Formats: sequence, C-alpha cells, structure tokens
Amino acid sequence: MSWGIAGCHGVAIRHHRQEAIGLAFAEGRRDVPFEIARVYYLWGLNPGDRRGEHAHKALQQVYICVHGAIDVVLRDDLGTQRIRLDKPEQGLYLGPMVWRHLEPQTPGAVLLVLASEVFAESDYFRRQEDYLAAATELRRASATPAPGNAG
Amino acid sequence: MSWGIAGCHGVAIRHHRQEAIGLAFAEGRRDVPFEIARVYYLWGLNPGDRRGEHAHKALQQVYICVHGAIDVVLRDDLGTQRIRLDKPEQGLYLGPMVWRHLEPQTPGAVLLVLASEVFAESDYFRRQEDYLAAATELRRASATPAPGNAG
Repeated sequence: MSWGIAGCHGVAIRHHRQEAIGLAFAEGRRDVPFEIARVYYLWGLNPGDRRGEHAHKALQQVYICVHGAIDVVLRDDLGTQRIRLDKPEQGLYLGPMVWRHLEPQTPGAVLLVLASEVFAESDYFRRQEDYLAAATELRRASATPAPGNAG
Repeated sequence: MSWGIAGCHGVAIRHHRQEAIGLAFAEGRRDVPFEIARVYYLWGLNPGDRRGEHAHKALQQVYICVHGAIDVVLRDDLGTQRIRLDKPEQGLYLGPMVWRHLEPQTPGAVLLVLASEVFAESDYFRRQEDYLAAATELRRASATPAPGNAG
C-alpha cells in the first residue's frame, strides 16, 4: 500500500443534482476502499484556524468539505502538497503515514471524514518530528525508490 | 424493533468543542445501533424546498444537520411529528417504516445521513399511500396495542 503524499488522491463522490440541491453517497468497500467504521465531522472552521495537525500509522480516511472551502495541507518526508476542497462531491483519500493539517478558507466551513477504523490513540502521530522520523525510517527500510513527488 | 414514529428518537452525538470549532464522531455499533454501510449527504437545501419524501421497510438511519437548520417531518399511520435539527451534535435516529420529508429552515442547509445498509430500491416506499397501507396492515397484524403517539 502506498503511503505518504503518494498514497493520497482525489475521489469523485457519486452524486445527483436537482437544481441547487446535491445528493452524494458513499458506500463502504464500493465508493471508498474500506468499511466505514467511523464518521466524524468538524464545523465552525474559520479562516485563520489551523487545525488537525497529525498523522496516522494505518488509518485510511476520506475528507469531504460539505460546506465552504478548506485547504488540506499534506506533508511527508519528501515534501508538501496543498489541496483545496470546495465541492461536496469531491473527496480526498488519505492513506497511512501522511502528516496533514487544515486551513479553512471560508467562514463556518464543515469537514466530513469517513474513516476505516474506530478511534485508537495508538494509531496517531501527534508530533510532527515523531512522524517525520518514522517516515524517514520507513522510506529507508523499503526497497522502493523515492517517487518524484517532492514539493 | 419499534417502527413508525415510535421507532424514532433523538441521538446525542459525542463531541468536543474548542471555541467555535466542534468535532463530533460516530462509530458503528457504538454511537449508532448499526454498522455504517452507507453515508450520504444533501446540500444546497433552501427554505421552501420539500425533499426526501419516502419511507423504508427495514433501513435504519441517523439524520444530522451539519450546517443550518432542517425540520424533519415524520408520519406514520397514527399521526405526524415535526423535529427540528439545528445543531451538528444532535442526531435523529429513524427506524424502519416511518414516512418522512425535509423542510429546510435556512439557506444552504446540509444534511448528513448514516445508514445501516447499502442502497436497495426494494427497501423504499416512494408513494405515501403505499406506505400507509403497509403500516396500517402491520399495525393490524401485530398484537401490540397502538401507542399513544398520534399527532
């Protein structure tokens, strides 16, 4: 399984539109590559907030901005990438071992997250230096040549 | 299992708050009484829209208004009930065999739904008269006295 920024990619969420109203749906193991063990959401996110700085060892997630616009800033041992989420039908899949934080772009933005596992504190990196040390070690231990995704 | 309006109830979603920002989370079989097989969401709901008129034979769902305010109007063979969803940490559990529609109360409201099963057209009642006939028959067939929830 890919990890770090190389393990992240956009996901088009199946949806219908009827005039202004949108309806999007995601089924576990069909629209997202995992059973949906947990759903969480953040609201009241405002420009200037910087939230959600962490990485996961194994968790897979799909981030969806269902109201407003949020930049998701990814980081791994090779570089950084900024991805704007501003359409409810557009998701971002995050694989394991990627550092991320949120930079809301509009007042009162809402982020919906679908997650592959229930909450487990042991799966978190809370300190960026711990994550980067582990990512560097993982890269060294794997035989895979570094992909050219350094930001 | 209860059905109709008697099978619906409010659900407090576990959450944290840090100033304006809220974070709420729901795990399958812990916070909601089913595995989360499907997640869907509606956006761009505006006052004057009347959406989502249907009932399910077996599906269980939790409705959460993550932006704005939405009235959920329930109906069964005994009566009606109107429930306002206007806090992201407040959910509404809907059991089987209840007719419902949405009446958005604020512009651009967003409804998040957690569902116990993947999509199956055969589980839907699309016409209220079909639902009411089935609900009346189910009430008659069961030995249970009618609860006093007629609206």
